[in-house]
Amino acid sequence: MTAGHHGGHLLDRPHHDGSELYVERGTPRLGDVVPVRVRVPASRAERAVHVRVVRDGEPRFVPARLDRSDEHDRWYVADVPVHNPVTQYRFLLDEPDGYRWLDGRGLHARDVPDAADFRLSVHAPAPRWLDDAVVYQVFPDRFARSTGHDGPPRGPLPDWALPAAWDDEPIAAGRGVAQQLFGGDLGGVEAHLDHLQRLGVDTLYLTPVFPARSNHRYDATSFARVDPLLGGDAALASLSAAVHARGMRIMGDLTTNHTGAGHEWFARARADRTSPEAQFYYWTEQDPGYVGWLEHASLPKLNYNAPELAARMVEGDASVTAQWLRPPFSLDGWRIDVANMTGRYRADDHAHAVARAIRATMARINPQAALVSEHFHDAAADLLAGGWHVNMNYSAFTRPVWTWLAEPGTELPFLGMPVPLPRRDARSMVATMRDFDATVPWSVTRHQWNMLGSHDTARIRTVVGSREAVEVAAALLLTYPGTPVVFAGDEGGLTGTNGEHARATMPWAQVAAGGGPRWDGATFATYRRLIALRRSSRALREGGLRWAFVEPDAVGYLRETADERVLVVLARDAWPGTRLPRALGVAGEVLHGGAALTTGPDGLVVPATDGPCARVWRLT
Amino acid sequence: MTAGHHGGHLLDRPHHDGSELYVERGTPRLGDVVPVRVRVPASRAERAVHVRVVRDGEPRFVPARLDRSDEHDRWYVADVPVHNPVTQYRFLLDEPDGYRWLDGRGLHARDVPDAADFRLSVHAPAPRWLDDAVVYQVFPDRFARSTGHDGPPRGPLPDWALPAAWDDEPIAAGRGVAQQLFGGDLGGVEAHLDHLQRLGVDTLYLTPVFPARSNHRYDATSFARVDPLLGGDAALASLSAAVHARGMRIMGDLTTNHTGAGHEWFARARADRTSPEAQFYYWTEQDPGYVGWLEHASLPKLNYNAPELAARMVEGDASVTAQWLRPPFSLDGWRIDVANMTGRYRADDHAHAVARAIRATMARINPQAALVSEHFHDAAADLLAGGWHVNMNYSAFTRPVWTWLAEPGTELPFLGMPVPLPRRDARSMVATMRDFDATVPWSVTRHQWNMLGSHDTARIRTVVGSREAVEVAAALLLTYPGTPVVFAGDEGGLTGTNGEHARATMPWAQVAAGGGPRWDGATFATYRRLIALRRSSRALREGGLRWAFVEPDAVGYLRETADERVLVVLARDAWPGTRLPRALGVAGEVLHGGAALTTGPDGLVVPATDGPCARVWRLT
Repeated sequence: MTAGHHGGHLLDRPHHDGSELYVERGTPRLGDVVPVRVRVPASRAERAVHVRVVRDGEPRFVPARLDRSDEHDRWYVADVPVHNPVTQYRFLLDEPDGYRWLDGRGLHARDVPDAADFRLSVHAPAPRWLDDAVVYQVFPDRFARSTGHDGPPRGPLPDWALPAAWDDEPIAAGRGVAQQLFGGDLGGVEAHLDHLQRLGVDTLYLTPVFPARSNHRYDATSFARVDPLLGGDAALASLSAAVHARGMRIMGDLTTNHTGAGHEWFARARADRTSPEAQFYYWTEQDPGYVGWLEHASLPKLNYNAPELAARMVEGDASVTAQWLRPPFSLDGWRIDVANMTGRYRADDHAHAVARAIRATMARINPQAALVSEHFHDAAADLLAGGWHVNMNYSAFTRPVWTWLAEPGTELPFLGMPVPLPRRDARSMVATMRDFDATVPWSVTRHQWNMLGSHDTARIRTVVGSREAVEVAAALLLTYPGTPVVFAGDEGGLTGTNGEHARATMPWAQVAAGGGPRWDGATFATYRRLIALRRSSRALREGGLRWAFVEPDAVGYLRETADERVLVVLARDAWPGTRLPRALGVAGEVLHGGAALTTGPDGLVVPATDGPCARVWRLT
Repeated sequence: MTAGHHGGHLLDRPHHDGSELYVERGTPRLGDVVPVRVRVPASRAERAVHVRVVRDGEPRFVPARLDRSDEHDRWYVADVPVHNPVTQYRFLLDEPDGYRWLDGRGLHARDVPDAADFRLSVHAPAPRWLDDAVVYQVFPDRFARSTGHDGPPRGPLPDWALPAAWDDEPIAAGRGVAQQLFGGDLGGVEAHLDHLQRLGVDTLYLTPVFPARSNHRYDATSFARVDPLLGGDAALASLSAAVHARGMRIMGDLTTNHTGAGHEWFARARADRTSPEAQFYYWTEQDPGYVGWLEHASLPKLNYNAPELAARMVEGDASVTAQWLRPPFSLDGWRIDVANMTGRYRADDHAHAVARAIRATMARINPQAALVSEHFHDAAADLLAGGWHVNMNYSAFTRPVWTWLAEPGTELPFLGMPVPLPRRDARSMVATMRDFDATVPWSVTRHQWNMLGSHDTARIRTVVGSREAVEVAAALLLTYPGTPVVFAGDEGGLTGTNGEHARATMPWAQVAAGGGPRWDGATFATYRRLIALRRSSRALREGGLRWAFVEPDAVGYLRETADERVLVVLARDAWPGTRLPRALGVAGEVLHGGAALTTGPDGLVVPATDGPCARVWRLT
């Protein structure tokens, strides 16, 4: 009975999510009572509706009352007591042929475990500005140089660096992959903020800017200063001021799981085993004498059993976490690298404590700061703990979207797995999206960092194989609940076969010219239009999500607020179109994709497509 | 792709569980490496098999190597490092049309969250004697009197008691339901131990024996003595000695969540708000001035913020937990009432700490003691914490079995839900069993306390409506992984429409006569035969579980050890039979149900049934 696994439309299903039509906005406190609503299509025959709430570990039933009804739907409401910090609930429909549960995965005609229950959380959600944000991820070495020349970087370079000319292809694997230095810097980013604004993004997310022994800088040698290769502290202060002057925001990237082996703390730790820093690491009898991230000797893992480490790193105003949020750097938040492993080692599990400490520190300095975890798989338990606001949403977005839109016959590897990326139909994609979305509260889902790719993956253009399919992917990114994150260069169709190869430089001359061998102006125009579309519609940013139909080659979904209903239809291939019930309203404004929606005798007529296609309408 | 949702047999699916064919028996320690095996039917076309292990929150892939193969199956093995206290793993099959995951729910052609990953746990499983145990639950007031008369109880009775004659019908609801006193006692239990041994059970589980103000005694007035109405301390000591003398075991029932309002601690707490006992409860401004279990003023909830409460109740040799495990009472373990709520209230969550404290205390006094939680719904998180060994398995057993075998048209309520019990097909039953089983390690599943009913539910005879259907239910209970628990009287077909009404007395004269209006001798013979069958087969007690087919009206499953393979076929109705592949071996010994399994040209021929039917064969 899970939605998405049968033919026809899905609009005969009852629906609930955490958006404003169903749950009043706001963060409840312990002891509050929150009315929750469920929409039951008129075609159903329920005798009664109840809400099952888990209180202190015990399920309790709260009767729902009919709140209002019209020819299409009956709306029930029930009062959910917020008795525990995270309150699980699900709906029970008493139907003549047996009860049904409604949870985050959909409708079930049998008992299911609690993992997909809806949830209310007393933990504050991500800051309000993330409601409207579109994030632009920049990998500093590859975005732009402030120096104005295109040859290999000049001047004193670190001994590990392999200088590359700006238009060189990034090394994809093996020797030099982390040493190839293109020489992008923060001044270069500042000089190209116009590009971000032309695209329409408003939040700049920089991967690490601390000094390191690699081009990716995830092996910091200090958290106390900005890498001089990037322009040093002054360049970050200047960039931050410039970003804020444009009304934009800027986020940093912090490795809380490990330092580089060249880190100043690690040097002191090795030099003096009685130093406070010696307690910051896990020492072992085996070579190289300490625990490294995924056994990399270059990345000694941090040990949060040491209270002094918490003080240096995450707790209080003197911590690394704190210092970069204050002027003149004034970061608007952190993306936390390897958040999933932070504080976890064997029987130690300080992960939630570290996450909560970071959030508390951030909240004192800037209550509007955002905290985003990197967690590649199932982050559910971590996202319920009151630490990370949201996660980089590989599981519920990137991975399933890739499987639907993968170029037929692609032999790309699949994000860390020892198997190739498969091409699956949309029922598979949607079932996975629902499964993972259902493990976290809507207050998380609606801000999750959705990506089509990042500095750790192949480029979306390479994954899907065509400009047209990129448009479908971008339309999904920009019309789906969550925070869209664009990896710099995706908007111009840059390519790359894996994370390292994807770290291609921005071809600024081609960007300026509107196109070239490495830059697709049409793709840029599409991204720009879709970002503007998102900005023009509150439903696309804040609305709930109802799946209207899920077919192998096409999906349709509704984004709805109290005053707006938007229908998104995406096809990955030629597709014969479908019909949707009149209950949705009448055909309205074309927002994207050109073709009109018409009203036929049997309902709305969703037109056929002759290839990959993205269409968006506002219904009235 | 979840198993059980298509026609035909399921034996073309790869399989893994935690039984000896797949994982060597034993409790791993941190740092151990555990080889895990997966069976892949020869009909599949995998290119490679990997195991995904989550270490410190990060998925890692371990290649599996082909260990052996024959014409039917390929067996792969992979080394799983036990790096964290609970190690999650799942299999990845690289197949030509795309990868598949194998987890506890089955095979998935798409990504799924981690909740159903297989698990290795460093926490010791339930004691070994539970491997072979068949538990018999006795509600002391209703089992037998030592006094030898059948009229209302005589002698001094508590003021709350409403004396009932032995053959009176229990009050099902309303006034008197908890006060009706039939006068069963521990001497009565001891006098009827022959009945238990004739039936074949070996573990006696008594609901509470502490003094209280009700017939169920879940509202203890003291944990320091046995209720004089039951014969006092001497009667328990005597019963325990008699049980042990017969090579049997005896378990008690402890309410760790609350006491009765008449409890001596609560009296001191109310009399003196500066007493240590005053910290044992949650006081409120609202009537009645304290928090009660599910708002019952008669059951004040215990507050584990008070360290002194932990010392009295669960921690150390002077605790209530400890004292009844020592001679002369020598209980072999505890069933913990309302375990799901114990230690949980609003923002407090001491549930795992309390459970671990109880286990540690028990382990010091009797390392062979068993610890069973009462938790009516999704106990997964609690069962992974190293506290409760196993749970009363309503979620993964009682509830799904009821939905399959419910008498058509029954209007019974469904175990605490505000809806009637539905009748669903076996695909629904099996999917729910797999969903819930998959949330805990096999070391838990194989010892879970499976029940067809208890003192808190309707009687199975009333649920399923016929002697024949009771046989199907009993066969499932006694051939399924877990610990079978028989609620005293079920073996004679006693009836009852809800938990209270099900607390019927044993009609001993009819039992002795081999039958009567309230006692069905044929049902007793069936239970006895099935218990003996379980004792005769190690596979039924310790084997893995492979579903062979799941059709609406019939299911078949295999229980397998290294040296034995048993096929169980259950039908709830007339059913045309089916065929199973030759790979299972040839038709073997008939263990239950009479009809022969034959080998036809297309494989094994499972014969048709003309009504509810249970059949068991040993294959060779």
